[in-house]
Amino acid sequence: MAIVDSWTSARAARQVLGLAHKLLSERGQANSLGLAGDLIEKMGTLPAQAWPIVFDKLAADFNPDPAQVLRAAQAYAATPDGDALLALTAVSEPPRQELFRRLNRAPGGTATLVRMRRRLLDGLKGHDDWRIVDADLLHLLSSWFNPGFLEMRQVDWNSPARLLEQIIHHEAVHAIDGWDDLRRRLLPDRRLFAFFHPQLPNEPLIFVEIALLPDMPDAIAPLIEKRSDPMPPASYKAAIFYSISNCEPGLRGVSLGNFLIKRVAEHLQRELPRLKLFCTLSPIPGFAAWLQGAPALTGPDALPGLKRPQAERAAQALERVRHHSAAALASPAALSDEALQADLRRLAAVYLIAQTPRPGGDPVARFHLDNGARLERLNIGGDRSAKGLRQSHGLMVNYLYDLDRIEGHHEAFMQGEIAFSRGVGTLL
Amino acid sequence: MAIVDSWTSARAARQVLGLAHKLLSERGQANSLGLAGDLIEKMGTLPAQAWPIVFDKLAADFNPDPAQVLRAAQAYAATPDGDALLALTAVSEPPRQELFRRLNRAPGGTATLVRMRRRLLDGLKGHDDWRIVDADLLHLLSSWFNPGFLEMRQVDWNSPARLLEQIIHHEAVHAIDGWDDLRRRLLPDRRLFAFFHPQLPNEPLIFVEIALLPDMPDAIAPLIEKRSDPMPPASYKAAIFYSISNCEPGLRGVSLGNFLIKRVAEHLQRELPRLKLFCTLSPIPGFAAWLQGAPALTGPDALPGLKRPQAERAAQALERVRHHSAAALASPAALSDEALQADLRRLAAVYLIAQTPRPGGDPVARFHLDNGARLERLNIGGDRSAKGLRQSHGLMVNYLYDLDRIEGHHEAFMQGEIAFSRGVGTLL
Amino acid sequence: MAIVDSWTSARAARQVLGLAHKLLSERGQANSLGLAGDLIEKMGTLPAQAWPIVFDKLAADFNPDPAQVLRAAQAYAATPDGDALLALTAVSEPPRQELFRRLNRAPGGTATLVRMRRRLLDGLKGHDDWRIVDADLLHLLSSWFNPGFLEMRQVDWNSPARLLEQIIHHEAVHAIDGWDDLRRRLLPDRRLFAFFHPQLPNEPLIFVEIALLPDMPDAIAPLIEKRSDPMPPASYKAAIFYSISNCEPGLRGVSLGNFLIKRVAEHLQRELPRLKLFCTLSPIPGFAAWLQGAPALTGPDALPGLKRPQAERAAQALERVRHHSAAALASPAALSDEALQADLRRLAAVYLIAQTPRPGGDPVARFHLDNGARLERLNIGGDRSAKGLRQSHGLMVNYLYDLDRIEGHHEAFMQGEIAFSRGVGTLL
Amino acid sequence: MAIVDSWTSARAARQVLGLAHKLLSERGQANSLGLAGDLIEKMGTLPAQAWPIVFDKLAADFNPDPAQVLRAAQAYAATPDGDALLALTAVSEPPRQELFRRLNRAPGGTATLVRMRRRLLDGLKGHDDWRIVDADLLHLLSSWFNPGFLEMRQVDWNSPARLLEQIIHHEAVHAIDGWDDLRRRLLPDRRLFAFFHPQLPNEPLIFVEIALLPDMPDAIAPLIEKRSDPMPPASYKAAIFYSISNCEPGLRGVSLGNFLIKRVAEHLQRELPRLKLFCTLSPIPGFAAWLQGAPALTGPDALPGLKRPQAERAAQALERVRHHSAAALASPAALSDEALQADLRRLAAVYLIAQTPRPGGDPVARFHLDNGARLERLNIGGDRSAKGLRQSHGLMVNYLYDLDRIEGHHEAFMQGEIAFSRGVGTLL
Repeated sequence: MAIVDSWTSARAARQVLGLAHKLLSERGQANSLGLAGDLIEKMGTLPAQAWPIVFDKLAADFNPDPAQVLRAAQAYAATPDGDALLALTAVSEPPRQELFRRLNRAPGGTATLVRMRRRLLDGLKGHDDWRIVDADLLHLLSSWFNPGFLEMRQVDWNSPARLLEQIIHHEAVHAIDGWDDLRRRLLPDRRLFAFFHPQLPNEPLIFVEIALLPDMPDAIAPLIEKRSDPMPPASYKAAIFYSISNCEPGLRGVSLGNFLIKRVAEHLQRELPRLKLFCTLSPIPGFAAWLQGAPALTGPDALPGLKRPQAERAAQALERVRHHSAAALASPAALSDEALQADLRRLAAVYLIAQTPRPGGDPVARFHLDNGARLERLNIGGDRSAKGLRQSHGLMVNYLYDLDRIEGHHEAFMQGEIAFSRGVGTLL
Repeated sequence: MAIVDSWTSARAARQVLGLAHKLLSERGQANSLGLAGDLIEKMGTLPAQAWPIVFDKLAADFNPDPAQVLRAAQAYAATPDGDALLALTAVSEPPRQELFRRLNRAPGGTATLVRMRRRLLDGLKGHDDWRIVDADLLHLLSSWFNPGFLEMRQVDWNSPARLLEQIIHHEAVHAIDGWDDLRRRLLPDRRLFAFFHPQLPNEPLIFVEIALLPDMPDAIAPLIEKRSDPMPPASYKAAIFYSISNCEPGLRGVSLGNFLIKRVAEHLQRELPRLKLFCTLSPIPGFAAWLQGAPALTGPDALPGLKRPQAERAAQALERVRHHSAAALASPAALSDEALQADLRRLAAVYLIAQTPRPGGDPVARFHLDNGARLERLNIGGDRSAKGLRQSHGLMVNYLYDLDRIEGHHEAFMQGEIAFSRGVGTLL
Repeated sequence: MAIVDSWTSARAARQVLGLAHKLLSERGQANSLGLAGDLIEKMGTLPAQAWPIVFDKLAADFNPDPAQVLRAAQAYAATPDGDALLALTAVSEPPRQELFRRLNRAPGGTATLVRMRRRLLDGLKGHDDWRIVDADLLHLLSSWFNPGFLEMRQVDWNSPARLLEQIIHHEAVHAIDGWDDLRRRLLPDRRLFAFFHPQLPNEPLIFVEIALLPDMPDAIAPLIEKRSDPMPPASYKAAIFYSISNCEPGLRGVSLGNFLIKRVAEHLQRELPRLKLFCTLSPIPGFAAWLQGAPALTGPDALPGLKRPQAERAAQALERVRHHSAAALASPAALSDEALQADLRRLAAVYLIAQTPRPGGDPVARFHLDNGARLERLNIGGDRSAKGLRQSHGLMVNYLYDLDRIEGHHEAFMQGEIAFSRGVGTLL
Repeated sequence: MAIVDSWTSARAARQVLGLAHKLLSERGQANSLGLAGDLIEKMGTLPAQAWPIVFDKLAADFNPDPAQVLRAAQAYAATPDGDALLALTAVSEPPRQELFRRLNRAPGGTATLVRMRRRLLDGLKGHDDWRIVDADLLHLLSSWFNPGFLEMRQVDWNSPARLLEQIIHHEAVHAIDGWDDLRRRLLPDRRLFAFFHPQLPNEPLIFVEIALLPDMPDAIAPLIEKRSDPMPPASYKAAIFYSISNCEPGLRGVSLGNFLIKRVAEHLQRELPRLKLFCTLSPIPGFAAWLQGAPALTGPDALPGLKRPQAERAAQALERVRHHSAAALASPAALSDEALQADLRRLAAVYLIAQTPRPGGDPVARFHLDNGARLERLNIGGDRSAKGLRQSHGLMVNYLYDLDRIEGHHEAFMQGEIAFSRGVGTLL
């Protein structure tokens, strides 16, 4: 049985690769649509075991010819003119890219490539050589899913049930507990916006959820309470981005989130001119793990972003915190220990400010700070859920999006500098 | 005055280039949208004289570094693995492409790039170095305007007046003489389909006009007669593509026409299953000029596609035809000289079959034959307009699209073989 | 407290009636829109206790003047010409109708009148004098909600969640158990169509649910089983109308259901030409109650529709059935007693055929038979739910819609004749 | 030939009337849709000569029964209760109305009735007995085309060409000279709004044209000059209704214009809050004819609306004006005679103020004044076109719509009082 399967898979893989070579060799474009259509159909029914064979071959057989590239590079180095450059680019781009572009021309091509990348990413660990296939896919998908081609749409209770069902399924941060919960998140003081691509018109790519509130919130529970009453419009002063979820793993690495947040902020500012504040209420998913790793806060390996007295105060706090077991730190009871909470908050500030620009830094912090947001406030007990206690010891962060200062913060972050409020500064 | 202008232009060009460098150097993506927006705005108001400065710099300053490329090519030649390839592609792609991709992300970016290419193409003659800029633009635009991203829409009398106005303006083959003429071309036995891009939703990119007839037509006049009565649907047996016009010069070289023709043919076949025949009624715009050049039909320089007796018969016909002046050949009176017309038709067949695969071949023939159509019939007096007589001596051609044989014909054409009907064969 | 309330109500009612008189007395139309708007607003916030006052006055004060009517009727009787008729209609139409027409002109007017009638119907029992108000409302609403003005739309999983929520709420025959149940009823082998009015664009007025099956079904459970797999399209041979629900009590008496069924049948016939059979699977809601009433099947009070031997056989069946208590007849155990079931089915046939044209006849039977359907089959144990056993002793009926014979059946029904199949005939 | 025609017509008319009787006698509604559909089809192909036969019969055979009506009226006079009233309305409404309502239920019914009324109105002169048919049609059409059911849409250059073509065709006040002229009237400083009915979705019923200007205009020519440049939005202070045209003669007498003007004014006020003034620029189509009739301005037959000195001044002006022939008064040269123009303007003011509430008054004045507008200004030489000189001696009027005072003016007009500005007052 297994033998037959593997034989069938190999045969299916060979057919796909045969069509791929034929499509790529096609000199004109007239016929390519038919070939691409055939290839898309074959890929749609390819058995799971056949994919690794296809990926191996895509990685091995669709690369530039090293000798040709070398000759073209030498010619270009000798005479760096237009002709030499045209000759160089003609031979140095991996033929895989042209293959993918031709696939993308036919109906269903874009969806097929996105799904293929999903599979590729699933198996990337352990297949280092597939990385060049992934690089080409990411390069092209970034070009095709650029924000200029995306459509932002508000999702509300008038949206098709089929779309809402996908939202329930893909919410990754604060799970949606059925239709009644979703409905609450679409009442006037909650908003949901998603990006769509014309080629995948019914599939949200990424979406963000917003709460409209009188001021910056310090805890997540009231925002996602499904039995709460909606606030009157006159009270909206702050727009809180409390959840952002990718729906399409095949687009990992394609920048969508920061464009979505900014376009939504501009949209809300136009619709509700009285909004004064745009911020997040975010977890610190890397905090507890970092703490368990007993980071060096003083001494030669210490975090470089801290001044000496700050580092010493943090080291003392760390020592006190380490008297508690991991389990104790993650238990609800810990929230009542005020001194402990103050220490944790100090350490979280250290973690976010000094570690974020470095490997092992918090991914959520990196996302927002790179977007140009400012670290505004750390909230003790902001997320008392089991997951919140385990990952962040209950702490939540407000990142502030000051639309006028986003650029400056972003550029500073590029230099390794973190923007934070005076309030956060005093925590150090 | 001129001095001031040139100084202003130089300054504006410098600003554009400054923003371009800044946009390209931007490490993250968070800020790029704002910068790209600024650049798009600046480009929108750039004085005409400033563009050549910008193009010169785009051609000179945004190229790969020859030394870096050479090193990467050598490394890749030494060890052709994934890492070496990633390093190579990172340095060999012209940075211009990344610049254009970043521009394309912002609202209005696509339109700005298309308009920029229009200007570039206008000045390309005389600026050979700009060709590498054009190559990069064409490369990206082909990727972004691939048929998978385009939407085909039928244009009819219910379409917005603003769109119809553009159709009147852009019809390049058989000019539309005002709204009444257009209206006739949108009655049920005439159809018009266009391609649109989501980023340019109100601008047709290319459109094709179709007549639905009982059989293959031999003259254009009845098809574009604005006072004609529409035929009843039951009589539609043949779909005639009688005009195809590009609307956007900035997309020259991006394949649109062949995809449009095929998608329309499939659409019509579904809507009207009784259609039996898809063909064109096309001019031979290069024929008269080729004839004036007194082509060698026999001897060492003769066209290689002809057998000896064919070439001799053609040479005799050419000799007879050359007794008439160019003006005489292009006069309506010539249409009554049957012997002359027979000679012209024989020569046109020779021209289309033997010359099309070669430089100087007819562009319309090349377009359809490369698409996989077959040269079906030559019609004497098919176009008796002044332009028709001057360019094609009144001859018109039917190219037949046999949907089942398109692939075979196209592949044969790739090998230099022309598909023609038995009827055309006998003309040789 | 109560005194204040009743005083407030009386005052609010007086305001409404004052505006009504003013609106009606308005000679031109220029101002009526503003007045109607004011009246609509007032009616929107009228306290519940004020409505009876308003209805009393609407019934008493907006009637034709008897003396005027009499004079006009005498004049028309003397000289029955156009002038006399115009004079007659001018005074004999209740001014209420003009009042309602003027209300209907303003934004929200239609919805206000529909809601007002809902309230009126709620209180009609015990207020005989309100019937003339109801008659005028029904007369006008029938004119405004005529099927020519209604839009039929298919409701599916792409419909807005807000609409689907209303469907769940209003399904009156076979309750929808949440979103998953609804979703099953919208898969391709189930259909749902609703009528909408342009003035109430987001409110379904009535909807019908259809199952597409290989043949005529004899039990409801498989049709509404939410975990069932959808059937493949090739198997659809019969369209079963298994549920029809009104959403708007304020439109009671306005014919909607029969128009909807016929429009849906035509729509499905066009979409799925292979459909051979349109029928219902319906309850007999009046059967058990009729049986309890011990109807006279022979003797002087017997049902007139039966021949002597039929009546005698039925009387014997009735006698046997009456040995069982009502509770026993409605218990699931009764379904296993084949002889009893045969008796019940015979009696149901008698009930439907002989009683339907008379008072106390089954309302569902009357609806479908008046529509021109034929009584096709009685199914033992078709509905084994508690409600089904209690009301119909588990029996269900198929009414057949033979589109070619609907007119004939309807006209016969007008004469008191019931159309039934040979199979049903043998049951007598 | 004529004999055959008249025989055919009579036969077709008989068929229509037969179907009408059958449709009306139909007791249930189940079948009425099919019958109504047949009748609509027959009416669609009825020969022109058959219509008078149909109208004669509609007027004669579908009336209430005088004896029945008399009995019901006597019973209602004796006991004026609900039952008696229900019985009365059941017999006194002309059965024609129910016939038309049933026709209206079927697809195409509304359009058929509107077209039928168009024919009826064409022949009404000379057929006094048809007036009762017209009364019933107008009664029902007023109910079905009430403004609550109408949709107001802006028409602009993005509207379908098919719709714009109808606008060109129906503009009745200032003819549109082709597509370029229309295009100018749709640029941002010109607006066009129309009413549509859901049952006739592609046919405008009535439309109004607006110019957005810095102030109240005194001449029409600049407003309809097709080569004029559009004004910048910042300059819009006044919205001028310069043309209003009915498209559907079959709706004559159904109030549409005043509702449209008011809805447009509210719409513009919301869109452009800086608009300070809503007015018309209107002709006085009845003025020249009234003048030719040598109206009595003093003496026993004098217009009652004038004070003695006003009447005397007007009589003197009239005497001076009557020294000029009608042709001289309508010639462009007359515009240079300032004294004459002052006299004409005085007389126009008299005509509008004193004659409008009476028979022979100006229809345009009656329309706007009844709507609640105020007579604001008379402009000498406002319309120098041939038609303008002939009908109004070049005078044009501004009627002012002061949204806050519309109701008061309208109510005063109902009492016979004309609202006019102080400026107009001084003309008397």
